[in-house]
Amino acid sequence: MGCILDGCPAGLPITAEEIQIDLDRRRPGQNRLTTPRKEADAVEILSGVFEGRTLGTPIALLVRNKNADPSAYDALKDLYRPSHADFTWEAKFGLRDHRGGGRSSARETVGRVAAGAIARKLLAVGPGVEIVGWVDAVQEIVAKVDPLAVSRAAVDANDVRCPDAPIAEAMEARIQEVRAERDTLGGTIGAVARGVPAGWGEPVFDRLEADLARAMLSIPAAKGFESGSGFGGTLLRGSEHNDPFALDADGGVVTTTNRSGGVQGGISNGMPITLRVAFKPVATHFQSQETVTTAPRKPTVFQAKGRHDPCVLPRAVPIVEAMMALVLADHWLRQRATSNAVVDAP
Amino acid sequence: MGCILDGCPAGLPITAEEIQIDLDRRRPGQNRLTTPRKEADAVEILSGVFEGRTLGTPIALLVRNKNADPSAYDALKDLYRPSHADFTWEAKFGLRDHRGGGRSSARETVGRVAAGAIARKLLAVGPGVEIVGWVDAVQEIVAKVDPLAVSRAAVDANDVRCPDAPIAEAMEARIQEVRAERDTLGGTIGAVARGVPAGWGEPVFDRLEADLARAMLSIPAAKGFESGSGFGGTLLRGSEHNDPFALDADGGVVTTTNRSGGVQGGISNGMPITLRVAFKPVATHFQSQETVTTAPRKPTVFQAKGRHDPCVLPRAVPIVEAMMALVLADHWLRQRATSNAVVDAP
Amino acid sequence: MGCILDGCPAGLPITAEEIQIDLDRRRPGQNRLTTPRKEADAVEILSGVFEGRTLGTPIALLVRNKNADPSAYDALKDLYRPSHADFTWEAKFGLRDHRGGGRSSARETVGRVAAGAIARKLLAVGPGVEIVGWVDAVQEIVAKVDPLAVSRAAVDANDVRCPDAPIAEAMEARIQEVRAERDTLGGTIGAVARGVPAGWGEPVFDRLEADLARAMLSIPAAKGFESGSGFGGTLLRGSEHNDPFALDADGGVVTTTNRSGGVQGGISNGMPITLRVAFKPVATHFQSQETVTTAPRKPTVFQAKGRHDPCVLPRAVPIVEAMMALVLADHWLRQRATSNAVVDAP
Amino acid sequence: MGCILDGCPAGLPITAEEIQIDLDRRRPGQNRLTTPRKEADAVEILSGVFEGRTLGTPIALLVRNKNADPSAYDALKDLYRPSHADFTWEAKFGLRDHRGGGRSSARETVGRVAAGAIARKLLAVGPGVEIVGWVDAVQEIVAKVDPLAVSRAAVDANDVRCPDAPIAEAMEARIQEVRAERDTLGGTIGAVARGVPAGWGEPVFDRLEADLARAMLSIPAAKGFESGSGFGGTLLRGSEHNDPFALDADGGVVTTTNRSGGVQGGISNGMPITLRVAFKPVATHFQSQETVTTAPRKPTVFQAKGRHDPCVLPRAVPIVEAMMALVLADHWLRQRATSNAVVDAP
Repeated sequence: MGCILDGCPAGLPITAEEIQIDLDRRRPGQNRLTTPRKEADAVEILSGVFEGRTLGTPIALLVRNKNADPSAYDALKDLYRPSHADFTWEAKFGLRDHRGGGRSSARETVGRVAAGAIARKLLAVGPGVEIVGWVDAVQEIVAKVDPLAVSRAAVDANDVRCPDAPIAEAMEARIQEVRAERDTLGGTIGAVARGVPAGWGEPVFDRLEADLARAMLSIPAAKGFESGSGFGGTLLRGSEHNDPFALDADGGVVTTTNRSGGVQGGISNGMPITLRVAFKPVATHFQSQETVTTAPRKPTVFQAKGRHDPCVLPRAVPIVEAMMALVLADHWLRQRATSNAVVDAP
Repeated sequence: MGCILDGCPAGLPITAEEIQIDLDRRRPGQNRLTTPRKEADAVEILSGVFEGRTLGTPIALLVRNKNADPSAYDALKDLYRPSHADFTWEAKFGLRDHRGGGRSSARETVGRVAAGAIARKLLAVGPGVEIVGWVDAVQEIVAKVDPLAVSRAAVDANDVRCPDAPIAEAMEARIQEVRAERDTLGGTIGAVARGVPAGWGEPVFDRLEADLARAMLSIPAAKGFESGSGFGGTLLRGSEHNDPFALDADGGVVTTTNRSGGVQGGISNGMPITLRVAFKPVATHFQSQETVTTAPRKPTVFQAKGRHDPCVLPRAVPIVEAMMALVLADHWLRQRATSNAVVDAP
Repeated sequence: MGCILDGCPAGLPITAEEIQIDLDRRRPGQNRLTTPRKEADAVEILSGVFEGRTLGTPIALLVRNKNADPSAYDALKDLYRPSHADFTWEAKFGLRDHRGGGRSSARETVGRVAAGAIARKLLAVGPGVEIVGWVDAVQEIVAKVDPLAVSRAAVDANDVRCPDAPIAEAMEARIQEVRAERDTLGGTIGAVARGVPAGWGEPVFDRLEADLARAMLSIPAAKGFESGSGFGGTLLRGSEHNDPFALDADGGVVTTTNRSGGVQGGISNGMPITLRVAFKPVATHFQSQETVTTAPRKPTVFQAKGRHDPCVLPRAVPIVEAMMALVLADHWLRQRATSNAVVDAP
Repeated sequence: MGCILDGCPAGLPITAEEIQIDLDRRRPGQNRLTTPRKEADAVEILSGVFEGRTLGTPIALLVRNKNADPSAYDALKDLYRPSHADFTWEAKFGLRDHRGGGRSSARETVGRVAAGAIARKLLAVGPGVEIVGWVDAVQEIVAKVDPLAVSRAAVDANDVRCPDAPIAEAMEARIQEVRAERDTLGGTIGAVARGVPAGWGEPVFDRLEADLARAMLSIPAAKGFESGSGFGGTLLRGSEHNDPFALDADGGVVTTTNRSGGVQGGISNGMPITLRVAFKPVATHFQSQETVTTAPRKPTVFQAKGRHDPCVLPRAVPIVEAMMALVLADHWLRQRATSNAVVDAP
């Protein structure tokens, strides 16, 4: 797996070790909730960094697959796994690499997390933005999390990556229970970006929420996206939903509530940017499933084998953070280009 | 208002009248649920169409504002309307056109609907895709709609644009009730595209759902997006959620359920593509609101006046349809470019 | 004709009158060297400017055709004019608007010049860049022009727009002579941008020269591009061609010659950026030409009628300047986004 | 070095060996005219190809540097080599990797040639396009080459890659003479694409010539571009320059001359596409040069050492061919997407 990150300004201090931290949060085998597959996922910086600082040129990152066992996938060659990309891939391309799903495998998110680690560093060093994601719900078990205060330390305090400790326990119990029944489950990830100043985002097609939605729905298994109050906000009236403006101690403009999730008219308003992403239950469960074979096409029954997580949410947290960081870094650079300071003088 | 649509193939028969049909479904003043503002919104084709067919070159469309009254907005010049884009716009650009919200006004969706009408015609004439949108929920009042069968005629049968007649009545009652209380409300739009063949969409960043999510979240007031089972799907187990593959009467591959919403691994699977979009309650209500003035910044109270819809959902239906059509037309053309037929021969 | 200019920062003072100045330099009928067609080419700003300053949103400009006479083109409907786009257009699109060449007409450069006027203003107000173009050669009659000193006033001092007065007279005599023989001619335009600081341009695909070359070759009738020493530089040895570095009075790095044309490794070096563009002779001359009819295809003879310039070079000067301004403004904004100042602090 | 090629259709048969053929034509040390550096430049296909056919997904190619000697560049750390990118790079990015020029090194063209090999295969297998490049001039020594007939075999018949044998001998003598004088030289590359059907290219900004010009000027050391008659065409009158249309034996439309170089109005006309690219003399010669040091800035004298070609033209031939192939393949795919066949039916 690999990726190329283009557009990162020169001079940013970054090391492979910093990138590795995020990769380790994503990799399988990190604790008892994830698949026992052990993949070191060691990142190699191929280009774009010199003596510990970015050069301003494309940064190529490479992660070699160490523990791959293509033969494990031989049984998948001649049928379409339900709710996987086997069929659509073949319909689109006419041929496919059946070994592990190829690029439709969630393993491609390695590159996202690696690039996102650099974007997060850039946002921290530059505008001072901090991003935190967490597991917000497992099925109907929903956490109570304060986006203003939640920290990565609190998120990583348990294997579920849910900072609401009693709820995290309930989530873990549910995951183990479903795993024992050879089934899988889904849920939602929440995330917040604190420190984004007002003014990022474009008014029409590249609205901040639009770009965040695209980024999140590009993650494998994501099926829904909410900004701020999201679907829940549709139950309120305008008089209940609007965020009143007020002045803070320094005379700055703030809102006293944040149902807008930090974005109004597609542009950041200086409040924390909040979002939620829905992940469907993992498609690979261990109960038998009806499907069809590839050629000739006949009904068949599929029985999954091997090593798979019952719930990807804890490992999806760094992916959501990475995609959020990439979108925000991009909008920061765009805003730097065209901010009105350009033409203040005359 | 205007727009330029680039990339439409040459030879498509299209007239201003066809575009006008969709614009008329979006315009205010069309029935008793919408603002009494009367805007003809007559579209003029400036370029790209010759003797009733597209030329293959950019199509410029123009809709002149006839009924604008800039003085109506003078009261808005010196304060920030809560949950509008006044503040973020000023933070971003340093200056703003206060008359009607400028480009942050929902009026910019005129261009989207006009361009979308051409995209819908192209999809109908080319691959044979049909798109239907409807009001799916007003607050907690949720319709029951069959995406396989719903028709535009059924949608347009009532002013709410909800094809579930008894529910439409309840919705209308709710809208009138909230309007009487000088308040506003939100809800969700559902939409389906039927006839999309398997194979549209790209595997990673330009997944079909990602591009649809971006398109929908670029609509003013949209705060959420669901593909297929969406957030509701997170409550199911994998064994309940997966869509089994089967063969239809012609030996084609179909799924017996459609929780995937017609997209698997970011690529269409030939089943109807379904989505839902959450719209927050209209920000302009007629109760007093706390806010701040622009310069000098002081707390103040804002009281909206003028002509505004209590609920934009019925008028948002053609906007959602238009954005869906634009995304699908783009992916159709992309798939035409790179489909595997290119290199079948050798 | 019209255009949309996106990405211009907010706050730039700009008026229709300023844009009109450049349009008037491009329009036909301005003097005795150009076609007697009188086209007012009055520009209308449709959006993006409010109270004399840009809003940061797309700027739509419209120029209505006043003096068009579509019937004049009826004779062109059934044949392909040699070295025009009639045939290629029909091959590409399957149908074409034969009235005046449609979008393949040089008339589309109205939009370029209008947008370029805004870009030039931005470059003047922001980084302080000044762009001057001139007619450098008519056939083999070549001017001697100092790119460090040439001014627009000197260029506009004669109808040919060549600042080398004696050569300008010879050029004008040649143009009148060729016109009398019912023929046409071509030549080259030179241009310089002064005040571009070191550091604009990207190292690989978006090299400054690459983007300038693309911009220039996108102008109708352009067939060649040179940066700095260009083709002439291929006759020199490395020891003759290299530009030695030296220090100026302020300790700044300069080159003592400028064969690089202000660009090294695709990035500006702070010296004036110089280029030349070759324009083929005007395709519409008044001698008879062999060609074929459209349907059925048969050999025929074409005899042009109407109003056409024998030499477009004087009117092409503002087009070259406009394209140069648009490319440089784009690279200025890009460099603002990613300049190393971003991450200097830590 | 590496590259990622995105957008290649699935199913194209391609092997590392085929890519290697073009890389071997570019690599140094291949004969007595090039630097004695020996670099194997063995290409590794990291992704996008499965069982010898493209998958439709991005193709990552990697060439490991085997013979690099960074210490050889230590002397370059503290000064700016004249007419290299050292200064502009530092001005842009604030820091630079001085070892071998980094990404501003002509070594980055490895990636272009590798990707171009795939594009050439695609064009050969799909539309049947053949591309041949050659050394057209070394200084004032100009070859006579027939673009209709020239073959790669004739080009590769001598070390200079000039298919005009007597001229090739003169070129080689000149190169050896200049090398003996510790100097360098430049010249031009010519190239032709045969088999491009009419209709590729876009009417305005993405004209075929514009995209080709951008591609060519993005090659290190390129300073000029001509399409068809180019600068020479400016010496002719319209009546001499225009290409008459005629019918071929099959009733197809052809031109009896090809001063347009296969492109009219930015769109291919079915005739061979011809171009020429000017390359400045190699910047690294072995005579002493005046320049300045980096910090503190003081005048100094630079004396190059090491292994460098006196003339890069023979090795630049595959680079020009590669860039031409990449541009044409892109336009082929674009034309497939929007060709008028889409909407023929109704």
